[in-house]
Amino acid sequence: MKNFLIAKSRRLRSTPYTSRIEKQGVTAYTIYNHMLLPAAFGSIEDSYKHLKEHVQVWDVAAERQVEISGKDSAKLVQLMTCRNLSKSKIGRCYYCPIIDDTGNLVNDPVILKLDENKWWLSIADSDVIFFAKGLAAGNNFEVKIIEPIVDIMAIQGPKSFALMEKVFGKKITEMKFFGFDYYDFEGTKHLIARSGWSKQGGYEVYVQNTEAGQKLYDHLFEVGKEFNVRPGCPNLIERIESALLSYGNDFDNNDNPFECGFDQYVDLDSDINFLGKEKLKQIKLKGVKKKLIGVKIDEKEISLTSSKNIYDKDDNLIGELRSATYSPYFKQIIGIAMIKHPYYEYNKDVYVNLKDSNIKGTICDLPFF
Amino acid sequence: MKNFLIAKSRRLRSTPYTSRIEKQGVTAYTIYNHMLLPAAFGSIEDSYKHLKEHVQVWDVAAERQVEISGKDSAKLVQLMTCRNLSKSKIGRCYYCPIIDDTGNLVNDPVILKLDENKWWLSIADSDVIFFAKGLAAGNNFEVKIIEPIVDIMAIQGPKSFALMEKVFGKKITEMKFFGFDYYDFEGTKHLIARSGWSKQGGYEVYVQNTEAGQKLYDHLFEVGKEFNVRPGCPNLIERIESALLSYGNDFDNNDNPFECGFDQYVDLDSDINFLGKEKLKQIKLKGVKKKLIGVKIDEKEISLTSSKNIYDKDDNLIGELRSATYSPYFKQIIGIAMIKHPYYEYNKDVYVNLKDSNIKGTICDLPFF
Repeated sequence: MKNFLIAKSRRLRSTPYTSRIEKQGVTAYTIYNHMLLPAAFGSIEDSYKHLKEHVQVWDVAAERQVEISGKDSAKLVQLMTCRNLSKSKIGRCYYCPIIDDTGNLVNDPVILKLDENKWWLSIADSDVIFFAKGLAAGNNFEVKIIEPIVDIMAIQGPKSFALMEKVFGKKITEMKFFGFDYYDFEGTKHLIARSGWSKQGGYEVYVQNTEAGQKLYDHLFEVGKEFNVRPGCPNLIERIESALLSYGNDFDNNDNPFECGFDQYVDLDSDINFLGKEKLKQIKLKGVKKKLIGVKIDEKEISLTSSKNIYDKDDNLIGELRSATYSPYFKQIIGIAMIKHPYYEYNKDVYVNLKDSNIKGTICDLPFF
Repeated sequence: MKNFLIAKSRRLRSTPYTSRIEKQGVTAYTIYNHMLLPAAFGSIEDSYKHLKEHVQVWDVAAERQVEISGKDSAKLVQLMTCRNLSKSKIGRCYYCPIIDDTGNLVNDPVILKLDENKWWLSIADSDVIFFAKGLAAGNNFEVKIIEPIVDIMAIQGPKSFALMEKVFGKKITEMKFFGFDYYDFEGTKHLIARSGWSKQGGYEVYVQNTEAGQKLYDHLFEVGKEFNVRPGCPNLIERIESALLSYGNDFDNNDNPFECGFDQYVDLDSDINFLGKEKLKQIKLKGVKKKLIGVKIDEKEISLTSSKNIYDKDDNLIGELRSATYSPYFKQIIGIAMIKHPYYEYNKDVYVNLKDSNIKGTICDLPFF
């Protein structure tokens, strides 16, 4: 496959760590929330193996925050998500599908409850800030909506716990998954969550003091040598093996939460008020027309840059492959596909249009493990 | 400067023309509305010279449409823009700043009035669709908001008129600037506007029938040989020389329309209802705190990937350079900068922080010509 350069400009925003990762050998970028997100430091497979054994520091500043504060902030945040946040607690993260009035997905942020009247939506790749501003203006809500200066660095991998303990002390290893708290480094308190875009364990540091964050970044590499620390980024292989869904790749504003397997985050039974609730009730009643599932193909190589059609044995178009990678663990190609009803229920054998021919694959449940 | 690859994926959407431009020699992409937008076919300066003399066909499918239709569509569209659309006509394009409740810019689309109750917002790089959906839901408007399948190809350059006449007949050359109409090619009617993201003249074809559009694309290259047609893309040099402002580069959601020189598109005197109207009245009363202006620097080379600080002779930080290029026409660097009040009024000499030293420049009015 041909390679193409990225034409940088102010519109594709740099991060406080960009100059550092460029010295450290970043080779490819993607764009996420109008910002540079590193996509490779040389071989993705080498980086995958390293991530599963050691620890990496990631520039994920592109995970931007939408800060919603003020008297009506809880009302607005709840209006945006089908997840019931009425019992949410300060100091906790919540994975929340954001839904529009048609019942379709707008984004799938992790929402941090900072205070009763202050929330951060740590967003995937779409301008949730304008959705929030539109809803707030339309409803005359008393809220303030901004994109604060927050540039996340993630520390991911099995040795992230040892590295973070060395920097922040024992207490940080006792934090539960999706908890967050404030930890000191050289006189600056950083909000740190036990979270991250891999299933290898780790933390995300929500850096508000840019300079202190850059010092922390450098320090992690200095003291992390004994843990074999490396720069890294969300890893295509690891995230597909772990079935971490990606807005824009695996699902988008044409899909609803039931089609994406987000059922556990949809509360239709309580009296909470959110956009698209009636639509989602209808959809649940009628059943979904398509569903995200796994696909396995006995091939050694794939480089997916757009959807690929999937057919059944009789050449009926039954869906599309949206993400895929060669998996060193499964020793075959694994991917995430949207398959039409009822084919996902009984058509185990499928044919994926790759390299101008239809290659046989098998569908399976998600996650793969 | 180091070059980096773009990591393609479904999330960075391909266009119906992507496979064609990759055969034709595209070398770099940017991302615009979550879609691939070609940024270079080899040398940008060669392409600039060609664009000013001949004709180019551009894949600008990344200029996505937000379609707003239904009973309350005119009300919603007006709510979003400070430009008075009460006398707008079907078959005309309108350049319209989109404003949020703080008076700041969300986008600067060209709005096409397709019908009394049907509009297309041909957007710059931000998710206007979610702003529209939020406003519509909050206001209980009866509207339908979608991103239709529309993939624009632009025909730009002084010979675009001759090429388009050859394909569509004499009538298309009589269309006025920012008019649009429907023109037939091999049995398919295409919406074609006299518009485009250069000042060299030309058209934009709003392709709805993808296959017919691809045929038209190929046909333009076949019959365009006599006009020296080439593939191209919005050209950094040409657009800065022409002072065509770019959302995300020259201005963004931290800036208001008066700061960007959009005064002629702001109607505060009539009784139209739009978001941020009261804020803009206050801003106009108090005067702006910063302003977009031109900068000229006697240097031969620049490659801007983020803002650069601008100082006065006493080392006061007075603004930032946001876009810049070497201009073959002016034989110096020209750029677009946001300069603080009152410095833009009398500080003709400025110092721009480039390559770790402060280089002298001069500020000037926009446009440069």
